[in-house]
Amino acid sequence: MSLDGFIAGPDQSVKNPLGVGGENLHEWVLPLRAWRAAHNLEGGEVNESNTIIEEQNANIGATIMGRHMFGGHPGPWDSNNPWKGWWKNNPPFHHPVFVVTHHEREALEMEGGTTFHFVTDGIEPALEQARRAAKGKDVALAGGARIAQQYLAAGHVDQMDLHMVPILLGRGERLFSDVGDNMHGMQLVRTVPMRDVIHLRFGRQK
Amino acid sequence: MSLDGFIAGPDQSVKNPLGVGGENLHEWVLPLRAWRAAHNLEGGEVNESNTIIEEQNANIGATIMGRHMFGGHPGPWDSNNPWKGWWKNNPPFHHPVFVVTHHEREALEMEGGTTFHFVTDGIEPALEQARRAAKGKDVALAGGARIAQQYLAAGHVDQMDLHMVPILLGRGERLFSDVGDNMHGMQLVRTVPMRDVIHLRFGRQK
Repeated sequence: MSLDGFIAGPDQSVKNPLGVGGENLHEWVLPLRAWRAAHNLEGGEVNESNTIIEEQNANIGATIMGRHMFGGHPGPWDSNNPWKGWWKNNPPFHHPVFVVTHHEREALEMEGGTTFHFVTDGIEPALEQARRAAKGKDVALAGGARIAQQYLAAGHVDQMDLHMVPILLGRGERLFSDVGDNMHGMQLVRTVPMRDVIHLRFGRQK
Repeated sequence: MSLDGFIAGPDQSVKNPLGVGGENLHEWVLPLRAWRAAHNLEGGEVNESNTIIEEQNANIGATIMGRHMFGGHPGPWDSNNPWKGWWKNNPPFHHPVFVVTHHEREALEMEGGTTFHFVTDGIEPALEQARRAAKGKDVALAGGARIAQQYLAAGHVDQMDLHMVPILLGRGERLFSDVGDNMHGMQLVRTVPMRDVIHLRFGRQK
Protein backbone atom coordinates (compact mmCIF):
# COMPACT_ATOMS: atom_id res chain seq x y z
CA MET A 1 0.00 0.00 0.00
CA SER A 2 1.23 3.49 -0.78
CA LEU A 3 1.43 6.18 1.88
CA ASP A 4 -1.82 7.59 0.52
CA GLY A 5 -3.58 4.22 0.73
CA PHE A 6 -3.50 2.77 -2.78
CA ILE A 7 -2.60 -0.79 -3.73
CA ALA A 8 -2.77 -0.07 -7.46
CA GLY A 9 -2.45 3.08 -9.53
CA PRO A 10 -5.10 4.63 -11.78
CA ASP A 11 -6.06 3.45 -15.27
CA GLN A 12 -5.61 -0.28 -14.71
CA SER A 13 -5.84 -2.28 -17.92
CA VAL A 14 -4.88 -5.65 -19.38
CA LYS A 15 -1.59 -4.11 -20.51
CA ASN A 16 -1.02 -2.35 -17.21
CA PRO A 17 -2.78 -4.41 -14.52
CA LEU A 18 -1.24 -2.46 -11.62
CA GLY A 19 -2.19 0.91 -13.07
CA VAL A 20 0.01 3.97 -13.56
CA GLY A 21 2.83 3.88 -11.02
CA GLY A 22 1.49 0.72 -9.39
CA GLU A 23 4.62 -1.29 -10.15
CA ASN A 24 6.51 1.06 -7.80
CA LEU A 25 4.66 -0.61 -4.93
CA HIS A 26 6.35 -3.93 -5.74
CA GLU A 27 9.94 -2.80 -6.33
CA TRP A 28 11.06 -3.83 -2.85
CA VAL A 29 9.86 -7.43 -3.24
CA LEU A 30 11.20 -8.35 -6.67
CA PRO A 31 14.90 -8.73 -5.65
CA LEU A 32 14.13 -10.93 -2.63
CA ARG A 33 15.12 -14.59 -2.56
CA ALA A 34 11.67 -15.60 -1.29
CA TRP A 35 9.90 -13.88 -4.18
CA ARG A 36 12.35 -15.27 -6.73
CA ALA A 37 12.06 -18.81 -5.35
CA ALA A 38 8.26 -18.73 -5.63
CA HIS A 39 8.74 -17.73 -9.27
CA ASN A 40 11.31 -20.50 -9.90
CA LEU A 41 14.22 -18.09 -10.02
CA GLU A 42 17.50 -18.69 -8.21
CA GLY A 43 19.37 -16.32 -5.92
CA GLY A 44 18.15 -13.03 -4.57
CA GLU A 45 18.57 -10.74 -1.60
CA VAL A 46 18.32 -12.07 1.93
CA ASN A 47 17.35 -9.36 4.39
CA GLU A 48 14.59 -8.70 6.94
CA SER A 49 12.04 -8.18 4.17
CA ASN A 50 12.96 -11.58 2.77
CA THR A 51 12.44 -13.18 6.18
CA ILE A 52 9.00 -11.58 6.43
CA ILE A 53 7.95 -12.86 3.01
CA GLU A 54 9.24 -16.33 3.88
CA GLU A 55 7.25 -16.25 7.14
CA GLN A 56 4.18 -15.00 5.32
CA ASN A 57 4.35 -17.86 2.81
CA ALA A 58 5.53 -20.56 5.20
CA ASN A 59 2.37 -22.34 6.25
CA ILE A 60 -0.09 -21.57 3.44
CA GLY A 61 -2.20 -24.48 2.20
CA ALA A 62 -4.62 -22.56 -0.01
CA THR A 63 -5.12 -19.05 -1.40
CA ILE A 64 -8.28 -17.03 -2.06
CA MET A 65 -8.37 -14.24 -4.62
CA GLY A 66 -10.95 -12.08 -6.36
CA ARG A 67 -11.87 -12.15 -9.99
CA HIS A 68 -9.87 -9.02 -10.77
CA MET A 69 -6.68 -10.45 -9.34
CA PHE A 70 -7.15 -13.59 -11.43
CA GLY A 71 -7.90 -11.37 -14.40
CA GLY A 72 -9.50 -12.28 -17.68
CA HIS A 73 -11.53 -9.10 -17.85
CA PRO A 74 -14.24 -8.64 -18.98
CA GLY A 75 -15.49 -12.25 -18.67
CA PRO A 76 -17.47 -14.47 -18.92
CA TRP A 77 -14.68 -16.82 -19.90
CA ASP A 78 -13.92 -17.27 -23.57
CA SER A 79 -13.86 -21.04 -24.06
CA ASN A 80 -11.88 -20.78 -27.31
CA ASN A 81 -9.04 -18.83 -25.76
CA PRO A 82 -9.26 -19.45 -22.03
CA TRP A 83 -7.55 -16.95 -19.76
CA LYS A 84 -5.21 -18.70 -17.34
CA GLY A 85 -4.41 -15.86 -14.97
CA TRP A 86 -1.72 -13.17 -15.11
CA TRP A 87 0.95 -15.75 -14.37
CA LYS A 88 2.59 -18.07 -16.85
CA ASN A 89 2.17 -21.86 -16.89
CA ASN A 90 3.73 -22.25 -13.44
CA PRO A 91 2.06 -19.72 -11.11
CA PRO A 92 3.82 -18.79 -7.85
CA PHE A 93 1.21 -20.31 -5.51
CA HIS A 94 1.99 -24.06 -5.71
CA HIS A 95 -1.26 -24.98 -3.92
CA PRO A 96 -5.03 -24.75 -4.58
CA VAL A 97 -6.29 -21.23 -5.35
CA PHE A 98 -9.96 -20.29 -5.00
CA VAL A 99 -11.14 -17.50 -7.29
CA VAL A 100 -14.33 -15.77 -6.11
CA THR A 101 -16.26 -14.87 -9.26
CA HIS A 102 -19.75 -14.68 -10.73
CA HIS A 103 -18.71 -16.77 -13.72
CA GLU A 104 -18.73 -20.57 -13.52
CA ARG A 105 -15.76 -22.40 -14.90
CA GLU A 106 -14.13 -25.82 -14.51
CA ALA A 107 -11.06 -26.10 -12.32
CA LEU A 108 -7.83 -25.21 -14.11
CA GLU A 109 -4.77 -27.26 -13.21
CA MET A 110 -1.45 -25.53 -13.83
CA GLU A 111 2.14 -26.68 -13.46
CA GLY A 112 3.92 -26.66 -10.10
CA GLY A 113 0.97 -27.57 -7.87
CA THR A 114 -1.34 -24.61 -8.51
CA THR A 115 -4.96 -25.43 -9.39
CA PHE A 116 -7.45 -22.59 -9.83
CA HIS A 117 -10.95 -23.34 -8.55
CA PHE A 118 -13.79 -20.96 -9.43
CA VAL A 119 -16.33 -20.33 -6.66
CA THR A 120 -19.57 -18.62 -7.62
CA ASP A 121 -21.56 -18.68 -4.37
CA GLY A 122 -19.74 -16.04 -2.35
CA ILE A 123 -16.93 -15.40 0.10
CA GLU A 124 -18.04 -17.79 2.88
CA PRO A 125 -18.31 -20.89 0.65
CA ALA A 126 -14.94 -19.95 -0.87
CA LEU A 127 -13.46 -19.79 2.63
CA GLU A 128 -14.93 -23.17 3.56
CA GLN A 129 -13.57 -24.80 0.42
CA ALA A 130 -10.16 -23.20 0.90
CA ARG A 131 -10.05 -24.36 4.54
CA ARG A 132 -10.78 -27.94 3.51
CA ALA A 133 -8.18 -27.80 0.75
CA ALA A 134 -5.57 -26.32 3.10
CA LYS A 135 -5.77 -29.44 5.31
CA GLY A 136 -4.90 -27.71 8.55
CA LYS A 137 -2.55 -25.15 7.07
CA ASP A 138 -3.38 -21.45 6.81
CA VAL A 139 -5.55 -19.89 4.12
CA ALA A 140 -4.03 -16.82 2.44
CA LEU A 141 -6.17 -13.97 1.14
CA ALA A 142 -4.16 -12.59 -1.76
CA GLY A 143 -6.32 -9.75 -3.14
CA GLY A 144 -7.41 -7.60 -4.88
CA ALA A 145 -8.78 -4.78 -2.83
CA ARG A 146 -12.48 -5.57 -3.13
CA ILE A 147 -12.28 -9.16 -1.97
CA ALA A 148 -9.93 -8.16 0.86
CA GLN A 149 -12.45 -5.52 1.95
CA GLN A 150 -15.27 -8.05 1.95
CA TYR A 151 -13.43 -10.59 4.09
CA LEU A 152 -12.13 -7.89 6.44
CA ALA A 153 -15.54 -6.30 6.95
CA ALA A 154 -17.06 -9.75 7.58
CA GLY A 155 -14.54 -10.37 10.38
CA HIS A 156 -12.85 -13.33 8.65
CA VAL A 157 -9.31 -11.94 8.73
CA ASP A 158 -7.14 -13.24 11.60
CA GLN A 159 -3.86 -11.74 10.46
CA MET A 160 -3.03 -8.92 8.09
CA ASP A 161 0.46 -8.35 6.70
CA LEU A 162 0.60 -4.88 5.24
CA HIS A 163 3.64 -3.64 3.33
CA MET A 164 3.59 0.15 3.24
CA VAL A 165 5.70 1.81 0.58
CA PRO A 166 6.56 5.45 1.37
CA ILE A 167 5.41 6.93 -1.93
CA LEU A 168 2.30 8.74 -3.14
CA LEU A 169 0.27 7.43 -6.07
CA GLY A 170 -2.32 10.21 -5.99
CA ARG A 171 -5.08 8.11 -7.50
CA GLY A 172 -5.91 4.44 -7.91
CA GLU A 173 -7.45 1.57 -6.00
CA ARG A 174 -7.67 1.99 -2.21
CA LEU A 175 -7.07 -0.93 0.12
CA PHE A 176 -9.27 0.43 2.91
CA SER A 177 -12.63 1.48 1.55
CA ASP A 178 -16.05 0.56 2.91
CA VAL A 179 -14.49 -1.45 5.74
CA GLY A 180 -15.83 0.67 8.58
CA ASP A 181 -14.15 2.54 11.40
CA ASN A 182 -12.58 -0.30 13.38
CA MET A 183 -9.93 -2.98 12.91
CA HIS A 184 -12.42 -5.85 13.15
CA GLY A 185 -10.76 -7.37 16.20
CA MET A 186 -7.18 -6.92 15.08
CA GLN A 187 -4.41 -4.70 16.35
CA LEU A 188 -0.87 -3.83 15.33
CA VAL A 189 1.44 -6.54 16.67
CA ARG A 190 4.70 -5.89 14.80
CA THR A 191 6.37 -3.16 12.75
CA VAL A 192 9.58 -3.77 10.80
CA PRO A 193 10.88 -0.58 9.18
CA MET A 194 13.07 -0.84 6.11
CA ARG A 195 14.30 1.97 3.87
CA ASP A 196 11.93 1.24 1.00
CA VAL A 197 9.02 -0.46 2.78
CA ILE A 198 7.53 -0.68 6.27
CA HIS A 199 6.17 -4.10 7.22
CA LEU A 200 3.12 -3.95 9.48
CA ARG A 201 1.53 -7.06 10.97
CA PHE A 202 -1.93 -6.96 12.52
CA GLY A 203 -3.25 -9.87 14.55
CA ARG A 204 -6.13 -10.87 16.77
CA GLN A 205 -6.33 -9.30 20.22
CA LYS A 206 -5.61 -11.86 22.93
CA MET B 1 -2.90 10.01 10.32
CA SER B 2 -4.96 6.84 10.55
CA LEU B 3 -4.02 3.71 8.62
CA ASP B 4 -6.67 4.64 6.09
CA GLY B 5 -5.29 8.14 5.62
CA PHE B 6 -7.47 10.43 7.73
CA ILE B 7 -6.26 13.17 10.09
CA ALA B 8 -9.77 13.91 11.36
CA GLY B 9 -12.96 11.90 11.54
CA PRO B 10 -16.26 12.69 9.82
CA ASP B 11 -18.83 15.26 10.98
CA GLN B 12 -16.39 17.85 12.33
CA SER B 13 -18.13 20.65 14.24
CA VAL B 14 -17.44 23.37 16.79
CA LYS B 15 -18.32 20.89 19.53
CA ASN B 16 -16.28 18.08 17.95
CA PRO B 17 -13.49 19.74 15.95
CA LEU B 18 -11.65 16.45 15.29
CA GLY B 19 -14.77 14.68 14.03
CA VAL B 20 -16.13 11.30 15.08
CA GLY B 21 -13.26 9.13 16.32
CA GLY B 22 -10.69 11.79 15.51
CA GLU B 23 -9.53 12.10 19.12
CA ASN B 24 -8.26 8.51 18.86
CA LEU B 25 -5.52 9.82 16.58
CA HIS B 26 -4.13 11.92 19.46
CA GLU B 27 -4.26 9.45 22.34
CA TRP B 28 -0.58 8.58 22.06
CA VAL B 29 0.57 12.20 22.39
CA LEU B 30 -1.49 13.42 25.34
CA PRO B 31 0.47 11.55 28.08
CA LEU B 32 3.88 12.72 26.81
CA ARG B 33 6.00 15.16 28.81
CA ALA B 34 6.68 17.25 25.68
CA TRP B 35 2.97 17.69 24.96
CA ARG B 36 2.17 18.45 28.59
CA ALA B 37 5.01 20.98 28.88
CA ALA B 38 3.76 22.88 25.81
CA HIS B 39 0.37 23.03 27.53
CA ASN B 40 1.87 24.22 30.83
CA LEU B 41 1.31 20.88 32.55
CA GLU B 42 3.94 19.16 34.66
CA GLY B 43 5.16 15.57 34.41
CA GLY B 44 4.32 13.06 31.71
CA GLU B 45 5.78 10.04 30.00
CA VAL B 46 9.31 10.07 28.65
CA ASN B 47 9.76 7.55 25.84
CA GLU B 48 10.86 7.53 22.19
CA SER B 49 7.65 9.29 21.13
CA ASN B 50 8.41 12.03 23.63
CA THR B 51 11.91 12.45 22.20
CA ILE B 52 10.45 12.77 18.70
CA ILE B 53 7.98 15.45 19.77
CA GLU B 54 10.75 17.33 21.61
CA GLU B 55 12.91 17.17 18.46
CA GLN B 56 10.01 18.27 16.30
CA ASN B 57 9.36 21.32 18.51
CA ALA B 58 12.99 22.13 19.30
CA ASN B 59 13.94 24.78 16.78
CA ILE B 60 10.60 26.29 15.73
CA GLY B 61 10.50 30.07 15.46
CA ALA B 62 7.09 30.47 13.82
CA THR B 63 4.07 28.35 12.88
CA ILE B 64 1.72 28.50 9.89
CA MET B 65 -1.81 27.14 10.04
CA GLY B 66 -4.97 27.26 7.98
CA ARG B 67 -8.20 28.97 8.88
CA HIS B 68 -9.89 25.72 9.87
CA MET B 69 -7.20 24.83 12.35
CA PHE B 70 -7.49 28.28 13.92
CA GLY B 71 -11.24 27.87 13.90
CA GLY B 72 -13.89 30.53 14.34
CA HIS B 73 -16.17 29.01 11.74
CA PRO B 74 -17.99 30.37 9.82
CA GLY B 75 -16.23 33.78 9.90
CA PRO B 76 -15.85 36.62 9.05
CA TRP B 77 -14.75 37.47 12.56
CA ASP B 78 -17.36 38.69 15.00
CA SER B 79 -15.88 41.85 16.49
CA ASN B 80 -18.19 41.73 19.51
CA ASN B 81 -17.19 38.22 20.53
CA PRO B 82 -13.88 37.58 18.85
CA TRP B 83 -12.82 33.96 18.42
CA LYS B 84 -9.34 33.41 19.84
CA GLY B 85 -8.60 29.94 18.51
CA TRP B 86 -9.36 26.51 19.94
CA TRP B 87 -6.79 27.01 22.67
CA LYS B 88 -7.30 28.90 25.91
CA ASN B 89 -5.55 32.14 26.81
CA ASN B 90 -2.11 30.55 26.70
CA PRO B 91 -1.84 28.57 23.43
CA PRO B 92 0.84 25.87 23.12
CA PHE B 93 2.87 27.62 20.39
CA HIS B 94 4.77 30.31 22.36
CA HIS B 95 5.90 32.05 19.15
CA PRO B 96 4.29 33.94 16.23
CA VAL B 97 1.58 32.00 14.40
CA PHE B 98 0.49 32.94 10.86
CA VAL B 99 -3.10 32.02 10.00
CA VAL B 100 -3.79 31.83 6.24
CA THR B 101 -7.35 33.09 5.74
CA HIS B 102 -9.53 35.15 3.45
CA HIS B 103 -10.71 37.31 6.35
CA GLU B 104 -8.64 40.29 7.47
CA ARG B 105 -8.13 40.77 11.16
CA GLU B 106 -5.71 42.58 13.42
CA ALA B 107 -2.98 40.57 15.11
CA LEU B 108 -4.09 38.87 18.32
CA GLU B 109 -1.56 38.70 21.12
CA MET B 110 -2.10 35.90 23.61
CA GLU B 111 -0.33 34.92 26.81
CA GLY B 112 2.89 32.91 26.78
CA GLY B 113 4.45 34.35 23.62
CA THR B 114 1.87 33.33 21.02
CA THR B 115 0.65 36.05 18.66
CA PHE B 116 -1.76 35.14 15.87
CA HIS B 117 -1.22 37.06 12.61
CA PHE B 118 -3.82 36.81 9.87
CA VAL B 119 -2.48 36.65 6.31
CA THR B 120 -4.94 37.18 3.47
CA ASP B 121 -2.71 37.12 0.39
CA GLY B 122 -1.88 33.43 0.14
CA ILE B 123 0.55 30.73 1.19
CA GLU B 124 3.75 32.26 -0.21
CA PRO B 125 3.37 35.64 1.57
CA ALA B 126 2.50 33.74 4.74
CA LEU B 127 5.68 31.70 4.39
CA GLU B 128 7.76 34.86 3.83
CA GLN B 129 6.30 36.54 6.91
CA ALA B 130 6.77 33.40 8.99
CA ARG B 131 10.40 33.09 7.86
CA ARG B 132 11.12 36.67 8.86
CA ALA B 133 9.41 36.18 12.23
CA ALA B 134 11.31 32.93 12.87
CA LYS B 135 14.65 34.81 12.74
CA GLY B 136 16.70 31.92 11.43
CA LYS B 137 14.78 29.18 13.23
CA ASP B 138 12.51 26.70 11.42
CA VAL B 139 8.96 27.40 10.33
CA ALA B 140 6.42 24.73 11.34
CA LEU B 141 3.39 23.93 9.22
CA ALA B 142 0.80 22.80 11.74
CA GLY B 143 -2.29 22.04 9.64
CA GLY B 144 -5.06 21.40 8.80
CA ALA B 145 -5.10 19.13 5.82
CA ARG B 146 -5.91 21.68 3.14
CA ILE B 147 -3.10 24.10 3.95
CA ALA B 148 -0.66 21.19 4.31
CA GLN B 149 -1.69 19.95 0.87
CA GLN B 150 -1.16 23.38 -0.66
CA TYR B 151 2.35 23.81 0.75
CA LEU B 152 3.29 20.22 -0.10
CA ALA B 153 2.07 20.46 -3.69
CA ALA B 154 3.91 23.78 -4.10
CA GLY B 155 7.18 22.10 -3.05
CA HIS B 156 7.64 24.22 0.07
CA VAL B 157 7.90 21.35 2.56
CA ASP B 158 11.49 20.37 3.50
CA GLN B 159 10.62 17.92 6.26
CA MET B 160 7.46 16.03 7.10
CA ASP B 161 6.90 14.31 10.43
CA LEU B 162 4.01 11.92 10.07
CA HIS B 163 2.58 10.04 13.03
CA MET B 164 0.63 7.05 11.78
CA VAL B 165 -1.87 5.54 14.19
CA PRO B 166 -2.80 1.93 13.36
CA ILE B 167 -6.55 2.39 13.38
CA LEU B 168 -9.25 2.88 10.77
CA LEU B 169 -11.55 5.90 10.82
CA GLY B 170 -13.51 4.91 7.72
CA ARG B 171 -14.43 8.47 6.79
CA GLY B 172 -13.17 11.95 7.49
CA GLU B 173 -10.54 14.40 6.29
CA ARG B 174 -7.66 12.94 4.27
CA LEU B 175 -4.12 14.22 4.69
CA PHE B 176 -3.03 13.30 1.16
CA SER B 177 -5.52 14.56 -1.38
CA ASP B 178 -4.80 16.54 -4.53
CA VAL B 179 -1.07 16.46 -3.85
CA GLY B 180 -0.11 14.47 -6.92
CA ASP B 181 1.76 11.20 -7.38
CA ASN B 182 5.20 12.06 -6.03
CA MET B 183 6.80 13.07 -2.75
CA HIS B 184 7.79 16.53 -3.99
CA GLY B 185 11.50 15.92 -3.50
CA MET B 186 11.25 14.17 -0.16
CA GLN B 187 11.89 10.59 0.86
CA LEU B 188 11.53 8.48 3.98
CA VAL B 189 14.56 9.09 6.18
CA ARG B 190 13.51 7.56 9.53
CA THR B 191 10.88 5.21 10.93
CA VAL B 192 10.36 4.77 14.67
CA PRO B 193 7.78 2.08 15.44
CA MET B 194 5.89 2.23 18.72
CA ARG B 195 2.97 0.10 19.84
CA ASP B 196 0.34 2.79 19.39
CA VAL B 197 1.93 5.01 16.72
CA ILE B 198 4.56 4.78 13.99
CA HIS B 199 6.68 7.89 13.54
CA LEU B 200 7.73 8.54 9.95
CA ARG B 201 10.10 11.33 8.98
CA PHE B 202 10.47 12.44 5.37
CA GLY B 203 13.26 14.77 4.32
CA ARG B 204 14.90 16.26 1.24
CA GLN B 205 16.92 13.95 -0.97
CA LYS B 206 20.63 14.73 -0.73
